[in-house]
Amino acid sequence: MATTKVKALEATGSAFATFHHTVIERRELRADDVAIDIKYCGICHSDIAQVEGIDQVFHHPIVPGHEITGIVSAVGSAVTKYQVGDRVGVGCFVDSCGKCKYCRAGQEQFCEKGFVSVFNTPDYQGQITQGGYSQSLVVKEHFVLSIPDNLDLAAASPLLCAGITTYNPLKRYGVGPGSKVAVIGLGGLGHIAVQFAHQMGAEVTVLGHSVSKQAEASKFGATGYEILREAADFDQLSNSYDFILNTVAVPLDLDQYLKLLRVNGIFCFVGLTMDEQKFNLFSLFNKQGTLTVSNVGGIALTQEMLDFAAAHQVLPQIEMIGIDDVPTAYQRILASDVHYRFVIDMSTLK
Amino acid sequence: MATTKVKALEATGSAFATFHHTVIERRELRADDVAIDIKYCGICHSDIAQVEGIDQVFHHPIVPGHEITGIVSAVGSAVTKYQVGDRVGVGCFVDSCGKCKYCRAGQEQFCEKGFVSVFNTPDYQGQITQGGYSQSLVVKEHFVLSIPDNLDLAAASPLLCAGITTYNPLKRYGVGPGSKVAVIGLGGLGHIAVQFAHQMGAEVTVLGHSVSKQAEASKFGATGYEILREAADFDQLSNSYDFILNTVAVPLDLDQYLKLLRVNGIFCFVGLTMDEQKFNLFSLFNKQGTLTVSNVGGIALTQEMLDFAAAHQVLPQIEMIGIDDVPTAYQRILASDVHYRFVIDMSTLK
Repeated sequence: MATTKVKALEATGSAFATFHHTVIERRELRADDVAIDIKYCGICHSDIAQVEGIDQVFHHPIVPGHEITGIVSAVGSAVTKYQVGDRVGVGCFVDSCGKCKYCRAGQEQFCEKGFVSVFNTPDYQGQITQGGYSQSLVVKEHFVLSIPDNLDLAAASPLLCAGITTYNPLKRYGVGPGSKVAVIGLGGLGHIAVQFAHQMGAEVTVLGHSVSKQAEASKFGATGYEILREAADFDQLSNSYDFILNTVAVPLDLDQYLKLLRVNGIFCFVGLTMDEQKFNLFSLFNKQGTLTVSNVGGIALTQEMLDFAAAHQVLPQIEMIGIDDVPTAYQRILASDVHYRFVIDMSTLK
Repeated sequence: MATTKVKALEATGSAFATFHHTVIERRELRADDVAIDIKYCGICHSDIAQVEGIDQVFHHPIVPGHEITGIVSAVGSAVTKYQVGDRVGVGCFVDSCGKCKYCRAGQEQFCEKGFVSVFNTPDYQGQITQGGYSQSLVVKEHFVLSIPDNLDLAAASPLLCAGITTYNPLKRYGVGPGSKVAVIGLGGLGHIAVQFAHQMGAEVTVLGHSVSKQAEASKFGATGYEILREAADFDQLSNSYDFILNTVAVPLDLDQYLKLLRVNGIFCFVGLTMDEQKFNLFSLFNKQGTLTVSNVGGIALTQEMLDFAAAHQVLPQIEMIGIDDVPTAYQRILASDVHYRFVIDMSTLK
């Protein structure tokens, strides 16, 4: 099969210094494929986890990148939804079986055959996928998202992972007018979650550790900002929130945070840590509370999220970088030195 | 106010040997009160927890008992739902504010003022309540349940606590035809949960530790019985159940049990332990799973549960005892030597 040669940035080892420019091949368009010129690619913490070999699916060399936006450059003969010139995006996955009950229900992320990640996973033909730190890619139409005209193409890229990761649980648990929501942490995930919850009509409070982010929290729509340091701080806020979204990837003193839940309240993790999480069952008992961990959403929900973001101008705040800034960006992410997401301007890949 | 003298069994200390016969007073009927001749009272583990002083609300002497069935002996002038001779029951609580959003929503168990327990709690007038180990009681009409004619009055008594505790989460999470349900433990709670889930149309499996209860599990409607001893046993059953109800009050190796959940699955605790419960967030992440802890239900749901139990003949299996067998029964419950609930025949209190 004829392929197209495409420039890319790849990591050949788990040290960031091993990034270098390379040329990869993109497959010839199948009937249901869309070819995309990549304009922007966000950097997500899970890119770093794969490059570093923290995640189990791991195969060097890696071309990371799963927060991709660009312009359609060609379409296969059977493609109906897209045409050349369309503004599009690609997120975490690029294929699934399409037949199992989860695929049929629009939850491709739970495909029984196993979905194909946009990078660093064997696809159903056995080829290791290569992601968005590249000039272009070819993706099955079903997994291509439409980016509305009034949604900035660069700012949209982090929505493809960080956006859907926060939108999914807010939507699943019916956050809306009348909901009191708390978001733990105001980072890459948190600053998007605050905007979504606010635009859904909820009253949003950020739970942080320092006053430095209070003004920014307000800018994103939070009407409350609370600093929680000791038990008395938690006691003062007991029974305050219907929904708490934890966006911070550190172990929590969960029993303290569960005090803050109202009756029938939900505590949802999107910030994850490998450490064991402990809690006392009685912290949930008297309020019939729920703990859950959320994942990205399926394709249909991702499109809904993009449309919602466009309608309400939910915009990730980004710092644009060039392709050769990627190693430095990784180090800055690990040092929490980013406000709030890095996006690679792919025109710098030459 | 005139009161009625009533025989009762009370505990004056935390050793079971301190049970003795006494005479207590029941209040004169208010306009909205119902007087009930108690026929049967179930023994619940939480009776023991209070007598032993494990629970925080604790005031000796205690007249325990919150699984009460009997016959209406008198009604106040404003009572409309009941008349003398009616078969009725009383469960965990006997008053709530009636005005807060939870009371208005039929969730009296979360009353913002704090509900009044049927025993060992100050009522809104400051009197310590005294429970069902007694000849009669007086309860506000709203908190009296109707026992359908075709529901055995003795077998019905454990439904007032153990029944609603298991019915509530099964109902809340939509268990029904198509659901695959696992129940951990086949004791007082478990044997009722299996019957409810089966009668709701679910496919039910009991997860146990020995084969000795397999035949009984089947009798209650379980079509599966699994013994889980080591990691490989759990691996074999991975991704099997939509809903797992833990009825056993011991700390679990939760990460192993969470393997058994399907996508979007729910793990619900009704068996509680004071020990910290640990788990890894990734045990829930890939399946978007949920952990919850359930409580008893409100009055309307308790009535629905009783009507369902009557319609489908969900009957707790009971061992009838006399009032003077209570101390021995407590010891047997703590030794797990009961199949499946003790019920006191209150005619033995003379």
